[in-house]
Amino acid sequence: MAAPMPKSVRNIIVADAAEVGLAKKKCDFVFSAFELPDKQAVKELEEKYAAAGLPVVSNASANRWGPDVPMIIPEINPEHLKIIVEQKKNHNWSNGFIVVKPNCSLQSYLTPIFALNRAGYPVKKIFITTLQAVSGAGYPGVASLDVIDNAVPFIPGEEEKTEEEPLKILGEIRGNKFVNASGLIISAHCTRVPVADGHLACVNILFKNKKPSKEEIINIWRKFKALPQELKLPSAPSQPIIYLEEENRPQPKKDRDNGKGMAITAGRLRDCQIFDYKFMALSHNTVRGAAGGGILNAELLVKQGYIK
Amino acid sequence: MAAPMPKSVRNIIVADAAEVGLAKKKCDFVFSAFELPDKQAVKELEEKYAAAGLPVVSNASANRWGPDVPMIIPEINPEHLKIIVEQKKNHNWSNGFIVVKPNCSLQSYLTPIFALNRAGYPVKKIFITTLQAVSGAGYPGVASLDVIDNAVPFIPGEEEKTEEEPLKILGEIRGNKFVNASGLIISAHCTRVPVADGHLACVNILFKNKKPSKEEIINIWRKFKALPQELKLPSAPSQPIIYLEEENRPQPKKDRDNGKGMAITAGRLRDCQIFDYKFMALSHNTVRGAAGGGILNAELLVKQGYIK
Amino acid sequence: MAAPMPKSVRNIIVADAAEVGLAKKKCDFVFSAFELPDKQAVKELEEKYAAAGLPVVSNASANRWGPDVPMIIPEINPEHLKIIVEQKKNHNWSNGFIVVKPNCSLQSYLTPIFALNRAGYPVKKIFITTLQAVSGAGYPGVASLDVIDNAVPFIPGEEEKTEEEPLKILGEIRGNKFVNASGLIISAHCTRVPVADGHLACVNILFKNKKPSKEEIINIWRKFKALPQELKLPSAPSQPIIYLEEENRPQPKKDRDNGKGMAITAGRLRDCQIFDYKFMALSHNTVRGAAGGGILNAELLVKQGYIK
Amino acid sequence: MAAPMPKSVRNIIVADAAEVGLAKKKCDFVFSAFELPDKQAVKELEEKYAAAGLPVVSNASANRWGPDVPMIIPEINPEHLKIIVEQKKNHNWSNGFIVVKPNCSLQSYLTPIFALNRAGYPVKKIFITTLQAVSGAGYPGVASLDVIDNAVPFIPGEEEKTEEEPLKILGEIRGNKFVNASGLIISAHCTRVPVADGHLACVNILFKNKKPSKEEIINIWRKFKALPQELKLPSAPSQPIIYLEEENRPQPKKDRDNGKGMAITAGRLRDCQIFDYKFMALSHNTVRGAAGGGILNAELLVKQGYIK
Repeated sequence: MAAPMPKSVRNIIVADAAEVGLAKKKCDFVFSAFELPDKQAVKELEEKYAAAGLPVVSNASANRWGPDVPMIIPEINPEHLKIIVEQKKNHNWSNGFIVVKPNCSLQSYLTPIFALNRAGYPVKKIFITTLQAVSGAGYPGVASLDVIDNAVPFIPGEEEKTEEEPLKILGEIRGNKFVNASGLIISAHCTRVPVADGHLACVNILFKNKKPSKEEIINIWRKFKALPQELKLPSAPSQPIIYLEEENRPQPKKDRDNGKGMAITAGRLRDCQIFDYKFMALSHNTVRGAAGGGILNAELLVKQGYIK
Repeated sequence: MAAPMPKSVRNIIVADAAEVGLAKKKCDFVFSAFELPDKQAVKELEEKYAAAGLPVVSNASANRWGPDVPMIIPEINPEHLKIIVEQKKNHNWSNGFIVVKPNCSLQSYLTPIFALNRAGYPVKKIFITTLQAVSGAGYPGVASLDVIDNAVPFIPGEEEKTEEEPLKILGEIRGNKFVNASGLIISAHCTRVPVADGHLACVNILFKNKKPSKEEIINIWRKFKALPQELKLPSAPSQPIIYLEEENRPQPKKDRDNGKGMAITAGRLRDCQIFDYKFMALSHNTVRGAAGGGILNAELLVKQGYIK
Repeated sequence: MAAPMPKSVRNIIVADAAEVGLAKKKCDFVFSAFELPDKQAVKELEEKYAAAGLPVVSNASANRWGPDVPMIIPEINPEHLKIIVEQKKNHNWSNGFIVVKPNCSLQSYLTPIFALNRAGYPVKKIFITTLQAVSGAGYPGVASLDVIDNAVPFIPGEEEKTEEEPLKILGEIRGNKFVNASGLIISAHCTRVPVADGHLACVNILFKNKKPSKEEIINIWRKFKALPQELKLPSAPSQPIIYLEEENRPQPKKDRDNGKGMAITAGRLRDCQIFDYKFMALSHNTVRGAAGGGILNAELLVKQGYIK
Repeated sequence: MAAPMPKSVRNIIVADAAEVGLAKKKCDFVFSAFELPDKQAVKELEEKYAAAGLPVVSNASANRWGPDVPMIIPEINPEHLKIIVEQKKNHNWSNGFIVVKPNCSLQSYLTPIFALNRAGYPVKKIFITTLQAVSGAGYPGVASLDVIDNAVPFIPGEEEKTEEEPLKILGEIRGNKFVNASGLIISAHCTRVPVADGHLACVNILFKNKKPSKEEIINIWRKFKALPQELKLPSAPSQPIIYLEEENRPQPKKDRDNGKGMAITAGRLRDCQIFDYKFMALSHNTVRGAAGGGILNAELLVKQGYIK
């Protein structure tokens, strides 16, 4: 972190994550940001917290594909929280449960796509190439020797997450479990570039039926508001999707902090030779795409009474 | 240039490009690398040299779309040089003529695509996102403030060149002028990243008819040889397309100098969710994509008797 | 600028700087940030504004060595403003005058040195090596090809400014003109590194007489307050010199924004094998070192009644 | 490494360094590049190899201060190899021994200083600030998040090595052990910058007695040859010190590969306000400063009969 540690957090107790009992005594709920090689261990630890009666708001990927675990972007699928009732029932948990957020690589483009879906223009095919920042790999993460004067055309597991997680997020609950959205296919290239923060996505989209005009799309994006804005969640950006007219935007350095790092910035909407349109979109990967996204999920859970 | 000026070139005369007469006395042919805002001026200057009896081997874009000007990648369309006869006739030029090379942004992926076409697997749709090096913008070119901790999602004119120039290169001469390849569509995003040299392309391809297996494609690429290799042109890479198995390659810093900067390095061939395959490809933008490409064109012209 | 243009400034009139008459009608005073190759032209233009009755608060270097022009760092030499009376008299100006700020490269280390001088520990010899950010060269400034994977060991004119300007700032008014500080010698290396903002200085100091202990120095720095703090000037940092104990600080990215970019961050005070001590110091070159420094000068001039 | 693994080395056996017996069977001598946190373990392992009869040519720091271990820069102190006889006697080793090279941070400036000493102009005080490349920290080494848009003003242990190791190298053997050079003091700042390879040093020097003119110094440097050049060691650069007249050189990217990475490039010799002169010097930290330096030591040992 660039800024010094704020005084308000200097007295927070740091303890071993295995001490679930201590957490139970001291916490109302927990954030999980475990990214261990052993995903099974993470899965079990999060379940242990839930079993102890603690809501788990997770950024980790271990539980993302649990059939009764909601993977939430609050602007897109807040109604997926309803599955929590089933989840508790399935595990016989009284108060605890697990809610997760998706991978950082899809945050930039999925909300703009959803906005179009919701406005009556369902998208059926998406090509994406991401230019991802090094902070996405954590710290120490990417070696400086690998990115000075270089780009890396591969991030383990990232293309799969980018292609698959949107299907669950845009899917629905049917018979007590999640069913992926049908009629949507995504194909992704994920690359790493020498940028500290901010994932940029180059996107090509094909609509299912009729296609809106460029003006309509920009209008849909600029007017897009959803539950976090209605509920005035503290971390919710007042304008979730910012569209810039300048032809050389969005840029990571200039646009990642829009909406305090919680807004998506789009630009360069133009005709595509093959699909309907192409555009660029950017989101701050460690704010909207990680910690901030987790906090927004927690705020939603509090506001809707899941966390008391 | 990193290396000091070699002794062998220290006595070369530097003169005003407008002195066509001097060039006529001293040169057998000329390289043109004019990239002026005024394209018309470049076009006319190149024509003045040709009119003076000097073959012009150009890297500039001004004459690329001349209906009788061949745009050559020697591995792909050397037979397009036949149009020179027409070109001379049209302008009433005795010895002079103009041959151009295409833009640097398409060098990475077009030879691999052509290799597939030639092997009986014509490609009909291509999505491309390029991550381009700053040297592509010349010197001083991109301001350091624009690329330190940043990427720029726009390069003026670059997407159009990337989408359109391949159609001429893969096209044919019909009735004394060029006709674009039909049945091929390309859609491109072009971005600038903080890399000094080496353009990386993320590519998705759809075949026209049947699709080869991955093994077949890799085999086609690795065995690909063309006229420059047969003629043993001095600057021709012995292996024009190098395919790397490592999942994190090609990388600009590690692969741009392959084949002395004249080879294309491909990697990450994998199934595409929407099209048939996706892959990455890289070429050195100032060697294969600029000066080296021009030299290879000149070598071809000499070998084939167009330049004496 | 990363952030979009604030609404409050969108209606500001942009006019040709040569229209001194317009400025006279619309402005109470002017900021000058002319950095033209022709310094004489800048000097004359600033004088034209002053002659027109407008106080000129300048970041430019053209007038820095005028014998009756105060070169101000408000924490160090606010009393130099007294020369304004002489300056007006010399030029026969009624209300206009010129006040300048020094070069950005010395802002990081000069206030810490001055704090020691003021505390009774005059410094007599200083070695400095600066690692300067590219924004110091303006926009487009340094070409990206020059700083990707590189450092440049030369910045035109910068070492001279770094060595000489402190002598005027620490000097005194004697008989209506400035006399340089005697007994202080500075030797500087100035280099450019691939950092967007924040100049870092590596400093070695030798005291004139007795030397304070490390604890004393740190204490002097941390307690240092001066006129801008007493006057509570809006842009004045509440703590002008921040000293960090961590052995790997200050760092440009982490510390340049301290005190809203107006504080100096020092660190790594340690014994020197040859002189008394060595330390590192950092300041934000476009805030404290440029625009912010000019604004602080203007605030001081307003508060002290020079600008009405 | 950017280039693919050369065929010639693909069959080299990779074994656990603890298998000293295997090395004894297969090797004539060993290179040591152990840089473990536990220096004592490295020291003992190197001694184990020597005890087994194997000459150890080490880049590691563990044995650098052994009173009978020569720390060699072949152009400077090849006569220090004479201590090997004592070293063997002290340890009761028959064929094995240990020779080390110094730290990479001093390679850029020490040979130029030595050239002046040897020419009759002993230097007595040196201020140095280094701008060091990230490859000096090994791989993965420096985290990309720490150097994108940043510089780090601290490298553990580096300033001590930079200040102390030259004293041994320039020292002499007296009574069977090394005695540091007297009359020389060095004070260093060591910083890390976003450069892949090439350490740049900003140097200020004070001569002991008379000072040569700038022309003399440049002449001394350009004409400097030493034992490696006389013996025509394969890795020895024909010109060990290259002096460039351009005012913005040496630069890491442009000059690190001079002399195949084994030459030192100096520049910007100019008067110093406090000492006699200041200059810049650069060397390739992973070639001359690490592997290449070790190889040159081995070549010297072979040529002089220490390794058979």
